[in-house]
Amino acid sequence: MKRRDVIKKGLIGAGSVAAATTIGTPALAEDRITWRMVTTWPKNFPGLGVGAQRLADRITAMSNGRLTVQVYAAGELVPPLGAFDAVIEGSAEMSHGAAYYWQNKSRATSFFTGVPYGMTSRELAAWVRYMGGQEIWDEIYAQFGVKGFLSGDTGTQAGGWFREEINSLDDIQGLKFRTPGLGGQVWEKLGASVVNLAGGEIYQALQSGALDAAEFVGPYNDLALGFYQIAKNYYMPSFIEPGLATEAVVSKSKFEALPRDLQQIVEFACQAEYDQVASDFYANDPIALRTLVEQHGVQVKNFPEEVLQAGAEAAKEVLGELRDSDDALVRKTTESYFEALALLRTRTEQVDGAFLTARQKYFQM
Amino acid sequence: MKRRDVIKKGLIGAGSVAAATTIGTPALAEDRITWRMVTTWPKNFPGLGVGAQRLADRITAMSNGRLTVQVYAAGELVPPLGAFDAVIEGSAEMSHGAAYYWQNKSRATSFFTGVPYGMTSRELAAWVRYMGGQEIWDEIYAQFGVKGFLSGDTGTQAGGWFREEINSLDDIQGLKFRTPGLGGQVWEKLGASVVNLAGGEIYQALQSGALDAAEFVGPYNDLALGFYQIAKNYYMPSFIEPGLATEAVVSKSKFEALPRDLQQIVEFACQAEYDQVASDFYANDPIALRTLVEQHGVQVKNFPEEVLQAGAEAAKEVLGELRDSDDALVRKTTESYFEALALLRTRTEQVDGAFLTARQKYFQM
Repeated sequence: MKRRDVIKKGLIGAGSVAAATTIGTPALAEDRITWRMVTTWPKNFPGLGVGAQRLADRITAMSNGRLTVQVYAAGELVPPLGAFDAVIEGSAEMSHGAAYYWQNKSRATSFFTGVPYGMTSRELAAWVRYMGGQEIWDEIYAQFGVKGFLSGDTGTQAGGWFREEINSLDDIQGLKFRTPGLGGQVWEKLGASVVNLAGGEIYQALQSGALDAAEFVGPYNDLALGFYQIAKNYYMPSFIEPGLATEAVVSKSKFEALPRDLQQIVEFACQAEYDQVASDFYANDPIALRTLVEQHGVQVKNFPEEVLQAGAEAAKEVLGELRDSDDALVRKTTESYFEALALLRTRTEQVDGAFLTARQKYFQM
Repeated sequence: MKRRDVIKKGLIGAGSVAAATTIGTPALAEDRITWRMVTTWPKNFPGLGVGAQRLADRITAMSNGRLTVQVYAAGELVPPLGAFDAVIEGSAEMSHGAAYYWQNKSRATSFFTGVPYGMTSRELAAWVRYMGGQEIWDEIYAQFGVKGFLSGDTGTQAGGWFREEINSLDDIQGLKFRTPGLGGQVWEKLGASVVNLAGGEIYQALQSGALDAAEFVGPYNDLALGFYQIAKNYYMPSFIEPGLATEAVVSKSKFEALPRDLQQIVEFACQAEYDQVASDFYANDPIALRTLVEQHGVQVKNFPEEVLQAGAEAAKEVLGELRDSDDALVRKTTESYFEALALLRTRTEQVDGAFLTARQKYFQM
């Protein structure tokens, strides 16, 4: 509700507003603000769409409604891939999606979502919050008058659903595989015939034989889409999506016009959601995986070493193209990302990874 | 500032307060509240003490000072290990520390910090937020009239500083090793002579020969304390501290007396800090480790497999004692924790762990 509406509707006299402002408490004096959040997700989409709604609710609750965020699922106000432009053009104040959808704006956006053989969710947050990642992201998005915040992460994803077993690189040649983005480029280099389809079209294509295999997210999302009915081999891990971060995008000018306390509420609500969404996936992926294995006879398998190795070589080529980009900001992002990763991995591989390996080998309660 | 003070000091007339309350905006009508946060950390202690201060600042900023949190470092208001009792007794409204410090209240508290061969930071948050952990924690703390929130995590810690190499279990027999809590019990079972000393006393004890080895946190904290000057062998990973979560504790009655928006601000500020503190450690541990290796000649080593394996057996014994506890809440916590871990590890070991292993083997940019 705008201040003039408050006054017009007789809820409060103009004199009281003036009196209230004298002690410097802004709650009465300022307008109550409503923001529209457009998302790239279907309504109540597990993990991600739910996270967008919860983010909006958190901002509304922490601000006691002074900043009320209304969520529009994909297609309700604008098409899913129109969300970023809606914020740029001002038909929404905020969006929720994944930065790598906006590669037509800058190829650097992939790094703020996840890239093949790249950062895990903990590594990404460390780069963004402590090693210059946010500053570079701000520089990229400032060109469009917006600002991005990390707002969730799926963690390392599943490798995909395959009708037939994958025992060697030979088994990948000509394989009709659904996987988008940079990951698709990696699988093309491995010999797959990569197809890009929306999530909702995958099941049908697997059934008709238009696809031999598909990767989407992980057990939590994949179970609901029923891929297990057709392809029983579920391969781990996704080396092309070691993490997938969601973003909340805000109009820079509208964000900067907020009082400082509301700015902080928006920013910290996004950060709390980064943890909440990850917790949701880490809790619900294994629950869904148990259902897939125990009730639907899904076979969980590891990619052969030669596939993992060739995938790493292909990832280097794909990412090398970004490092050699004509776009100075893409080069700068790539360099910052890999300089940070070189450091970060010394901890995550040698400490965290070593612990997970030891626990897997030796500990059972 | 209390409402009566606002009125007494003539900042606003009583009539205006009455007028303001008519539109239901609480900001003017309610008291401005100040909370005292007592912590178990030295002032500006890297990662953890800094996190306590930042948590206080976030609550104050998001509430625009309606809830102002003042931080008292260890010893300023109460001794470090008096923080929990201070909240129970009402000399502070909030504390910041680690739940396992309060084992004299309930041995179940260890599970909300970290236990040998137990949950990583992602697994802990998944259990607490989605698998019943918070509800059990609430039940334990309700006995003392308080409520706990996760407020940070160090991630998997370093295994410790050793004057001599550890090549077998034989090298551990009689070793004078500083490590507290359940981890200390595990190392005792391995044959070490376990000593408990405060962080600030370790250096001197290593120097005098009173200690042969010590573990504290990880590179970020350990570098500052100078252990590398005496013990050059830095072993990874800590199988006794796969994560160490910090907690924020609030007085239950004072928390419940807050208006809903301030309750949410406290809760979500803690959650944002859980991510921020972890990001701080994941970013700064490897930076500190590089300094230790390149400037101070530290040798980073892995524990021998037989130590990791014997450590797992010892951890099972120590944790088995908790599962068989006379205290029903300790048994309930242990069962919930290990039931959750059995599920969670299928993802973290087979997906996240498998990715980290593959990246370490095959990918280099």
